[in-house]
Amino acid sequence: MDELKTIEWKNGKVRILDQVRLPNELVLLEISDHHGIVKAIKEMNVRGAPAIGIAAAFGVVLGIWNASDTDRALFLEKSNKAIDDLKATRPTAKDLFWALDRMRKKLSANLNRPVNEIKIELLKEAQNILENNITNCKRIGRNGAALLPANANILTHCNAGALAMGGYGSALGIVRAAVEQSKKVKVYSCETRPLLQGARITCFELMEDDINVTLICDSAAAYVMSQNLVNAVIVGADRIAANGDFANKIGTYGLAVLAKQHHIPFFVAAPLSSIDFDIKTGKEIVIEKRAPEEITKIGDMEIAPEGVPVLNPAFDVTPHQFISALITEKGVIRPPLFEGLSKQKNKS
Amino acid sequence: MDELKTIEWKNGKVRILDQVRLPNELVLLEISDHHGIVKAIKEMNVRGAPAIGIAAAFGVVLGIWNASDTDRALFLEKSNKAIDDLKATRPTAKDLFWALDRMRKKLSANLNRPVNEIKIELLKEAQNILENNITNCKRIGRNGAALLPANANILTHCNAGALAMGGYGSALGIVRAAVEQSKKVKVYSCETRPLLQGARITCFELMEDDINVTLICDSAAAYVMSQNLVNAVIVGADRIAANGDFANKIGTYGLAVLAKQHHIPFFVAAPLSSIDFDIKTGKEIVIEKRAPEEITKIGDMEIAPEGVPVLNPAFDVTPHQFISALITEKGVIRPPLFEGLSKQKNKS
Repeated sequence: MDELKTIEWKNGKVRILDQVRLPNELVLLEISDHHGIVKAIKEMNVRGAPAIGIAAAFGVVLGIWNASDTDRALFLEKSNKAIDDLKATRPTAKDLFWALDRMRKKLSANLNRPVNEIKIELLKEAQNILENNITNCKRIGRNGAALLPANANILTHCNAGALAMGGYGSALGIVRAAVEQSKKVKVYSCETRPLLQGARITCFELMEDDINVTLICDSAAAYVMSQNLVNAVIVGADRIAANGDFANKIGTYGLAVLAKQHHIPFFVAAPLSSIDFDIKTGKEIVIEKRAPEEITKIGDMEIAPEGVPVLNPAFDVTPHQFISALITEKGVIRPPLFEGLSKQKNKS
Repeated sequence: MDELKTIEWKNGKVRILDQVRLPNELVLLEISDHHGIVKAIKEMNVRGAPAIGIAAAFGVVLGIWNASDTDRALFLEKSNKAIDDLKATRPTAKDLFWALDRMRKKLSANLNRPVNEIKIELLKEAQNILENNITNCKRIGRNGAALLPANANILTHCNAGALAMGGYGSALGIVRAAVEQSKKVKVYSCETRPLLQGARITCFELMEDDINVTLICDSAAAYVMSQNLVNAVIVGADRIAANGDFANKIGTYGLAVLAKQHHIPFFVAAPLSSIDFDIKTGKEIVIEKRAPEEITKIGDMEIAPEGVPVLNPAFDVTPHQFISALITEKGVIRPPLFEGLSKQKNKS
């Protein structure tokens, strides 16, 4: 996966690998203004909480990159507009707000400098967010892999892989690190309806890296657990509350209940940027409801009766009680998660 | 749904509503020999345990319908061949074997009569199986509806509806009966990957009957339960063991675990023909594994990377401990199911 970059800054533009068209087509979107990033986030050409944050950070840069260096008022107007537009793209992923917050702080800290220098500072900040995320994923990977047995049979959901991050991945970072540690790894990938990120992206990533992967329907996870085919569940997170409750792709909560029923450890892998210390519990997390057509159509093909009412929540919330460990770049947090998270907050 | 018949005998041929093409196309397959029924069962143009049994019974009739009335040896050879071929179509649904057993017994009981009369007896038996199934579904419906609250918010999986039976449905028979009893009914239908019987068939059936239905992804069931949107889960069964363990469409077991976690009653609706008293527990039920392409393709469209390994069990087994009640045409069996089933066995 080293050659395929999720997001890249190149000659004043942002290149994004179009995740809507994977795995059938490898298409790089070249985006030159912040509206293009807004669209790419909304339409999920780029997805995964950290990747959304990184894309948004570069979106802020695009929003001001071609602004006049001499009109400071217009520059500020453009940067605020870009931040506001990007903030309104999707409600659930914490990393989006975290990354935009970092960009706004960087802007504030450099307000007195010449506009052309602020531009460079903002670009550097976006690049830092990207690079730090990759470093953090590698740490998450090592921290998590240490928890796995020599024969690790892992079930994962959606894609918390290189393509959901700057690179390497959080849940799939653990998979990669386990392989690097010479563990024998087998992954069951839930296809992850409606948008099939598990089938299209996780399977693609793991096959690219020659890691043993088997695709299952989401509803086959209980069967797989009941047949003792997996000994760990690892998922990512879009937002983690102060008590450890977390939002992730719809279906995650069900997997957590099933893992508990089958006495299988349930691990959550996420960078600290996914933690929202401002909310006490998962009840405060806003769950995005997406369009019915994501469920009723595949491509242009209708797969449900015309006009059927649909409920399409993009995420669900898993209560902290179901989590065996939260794996971050700073180490493994064990229950009671509230305590571990609180210590982490005070350190940061 | 009264005008749409799952299976019908018409002028020496069998008409089957092609369930593969629903809801986009309403196509009646006209089948004139037993090989056509074998193919329709294997390729799931007709599906649902009781409907498979009914189709197989008519398949036996087609197998001998045009046989010479004067060559008794050939007639017997043809009838045995038809029964054997039909038996080998799919391994899990009990009703298939039950219906073929009834046809074989009817054949044995009439062996001394003229061939043309045996043919009529076999046709009558197939028609009896069909008509009794509809009657039984209506009884299941009434028995089950009595268990539901005045505001029944029901989650169901796959299609245990009119099109899985001779008509009316088992799980959906309960839904229909509840509506007839003027209960306020709302149904959440899991789309039921890979073949989408929930989206394509259950939603279609309920919309035809103006019953309030909402389509969800299979993985959203846990969310729906956590939001208190449902107060009953009702599913069908493909085979029920003597202790109450049962096989049903993949995903059913996961729903049972989730229902228990959320203290939601979990009802299984099935005619007695789905009970296999010869097996003690669900461990003995053969689970059919179907082709990878059911998961990796929708129509002709590839939705997963080429060559990805796939595990595609068509069913899972839910242990009896998760069942709140088993609803049959003869009444409601409550835990301990082994006891209730054993009484039923002795009566029959």
